[in-house]
Amino acid sequence: MKTPFISRLAIIGVGLIGGSLALALKRAGAVGEVVGCGRNAADLEKGVKLGVIDRCSTDPIQAVRDADVIVLATPIGAMGATLEKIRDHLAPQAVITDAGSAKVSVIAGARAALGARFADFVPGHPIAGTEKSGIEAGFPDLYVHHRVILCPQPETRMSALSKVQRMWELVGAQVEQMEAARHDAILARTSHLPHLVAYALADVLAATRPQSEVLRFAAGGFRDLTRVASSPPVMWRDIALANREALLPALDEYLAALNAIRTAVAARDAVALEAIFARAKALRDALPPRQ
Amino acid sequence: MKTPFISRLAIIGVGLIGGSLALALKRAGAVGEVVGCGRNAADLEKGVKLGVIDRCSTDPIQAVRDADVIVLATPIGAMGATLEKIRDHLAPQAVITDAGSAKVSVIAGARAALGARFADFVPGHPIAGTEKSGIEAGFPDLYVHHRVILCPQPETRMSALSKVQRMWELVGAQVEQMEAARHDAILARTSHLPHLVAYALADVLAATRPQSEVLRFAAGGFRDLTRVASSPPVMWRDIALANREALLPALDEYLAALNAIRTAVAARDAVALEAIFARAKALRDALPPRQ
Repeated sequence: MKTPFISRLAIIGVGLIGGSLALALKRAGAVGEVVGCGRNAADLEKGVKLGVIDRCSTDPIQAVRDADVIVLATPIGAMGATLEKIRDHLAPQAVITDAGSAKVSVIAGARAALGARFADFVPGHPIAGTEKSGIEAGFPDLYVHHRVILCPQPETRMSALSKVQRMWELVGAQVEQMEAARHDAILARTSHLPHLVAYALADVLAATRPQSEVLRFAAGGFRDLTRVASSPPVMWRDIALANREALLPALDEYLAALNAIRTAVAARDAVALEAIFARAKALRDALPPRQ
Repeated sequence: MKTPFISRLAIIGVGLIGGSLALALKRAGAVGEVVGCGRNAADLEKGVKLGVIDRCSTDPIQAVRDADVIVLATPIGAMGATLEKIRDHLAPQAVITDAGSAKVSVIAGARAALGARFADFVPGHPIAGTEKSGIEAGFPDLYVHHRVILCPQPETRMSALSKVQRMWELVGAQVEQMEAARHDAILARTSHLPHLVAYALADVLAATRPQSEVLRFAAGGFRDLTRVASSPPVMWRDIALANREALLPALDEYLAALNAIRTAVAARDAVALEAIFARAKALRDALPPRQ
């Protein structure tokens, strides 16, 4: 048998993102053994049963032993402490990457936690996901035709970068490199802000009475707008805080845009209102078709 | 041949809503002749060619001649003037209804415009639609299993109410009656506010540079959240202004909810943020499945 591209893969945080990666690498014949790590032993056992992972441990130190690739797919808030814990237990050839939706703060945390091994850390972000979560939500096609952004640092080893890039390509993703601050500014507007907007909208309806009537008349538009509000609160709490620096200006731009609409409605300014709506429609209509 | 339920139907404003109603009534064998009326003669000719309407006129006075049912499906801002124009040209048996998304202001306008014939006006709102518009977007299943709200007034003739109710039932809709102000308050939150939220979000991205990068990274969440921003600007300008009284408080609730999220992000208040997200998720998860 040919040696697989990855001999032993350790996935720390086996939810939709980590589980789908494991399934996709297995299907591609690109991984020998997958070790899953998480806080909930029952979830991990379910992962073994479903064939998403081969072995499991609730101890990251156990999980990374002899692994040549380690993927962090936990909520962002847990990453720094995990990296500190595993640092002295990494195999010499080990390459580490993450799937965090904010990059500047994850990189700062990793640099502080990993010491010399920071050279083997490749900051990454697969732009994929659904509002579903958990190990049973994973599926091997999640990354096909999706973008993965890598943010290599001055210290990053080229060999580590190549390894992570190839891993994502093997599961069908399009990999590109980007400066971390630019990543954070763009994702703040295209992904993080939309989630906060959806949470706020669902929260308005949560406070409206009678509740039964609100639910009964929530039309298609409302459903689409709040779909992502079903996303895991802890994950998005961590993303919002981790990308705080880029997110606050994006939030302020949004509040200004909405206040401009409010002002036009209050002033019965039909001309201004139509101009805003037409400008927004032009942007929406310019989106390339969904892949 | 049996006399159809409606001998001559006049639809003023033949877009998605009016066109779909015509197609559905024809399929149900419930209408003899459909006369379409609009400002754009070419669009009307297209409607005749597509078989959505049988005849057309750009003159509402011509269009309503001898019609027993008249449906106003224009943008709300045009309704008052249209009603005033047709008032003295209505057949004695004519029943008039509308499809406007705001009811209190439409009712006030109709009462002022129609004089004694206001007794034959049944304020209505089919809760259906897509972000598509225009006569070619119509399809006969649009109203199946959708709700239509009617807001009869003290002056409304029971026979007019029955006629309009039966018309909507014949195309598969579930009709219910509601007080106009209550309709406006609920729809402000479940439909109108979500549209403004989506327009504002698309508008933030319209102002972000480089534009190409924004479009490239607009993920699934952003697409869903801004889908309704493709809706016709004039139509939504009119709805926002017509439902101004109910919409401004809803907008203020939303701005307060989003400001609470902003405050929590700014203060790095993880507990508050998670609580808001969890509350919003619970509301979203409680929505009944899409019909």
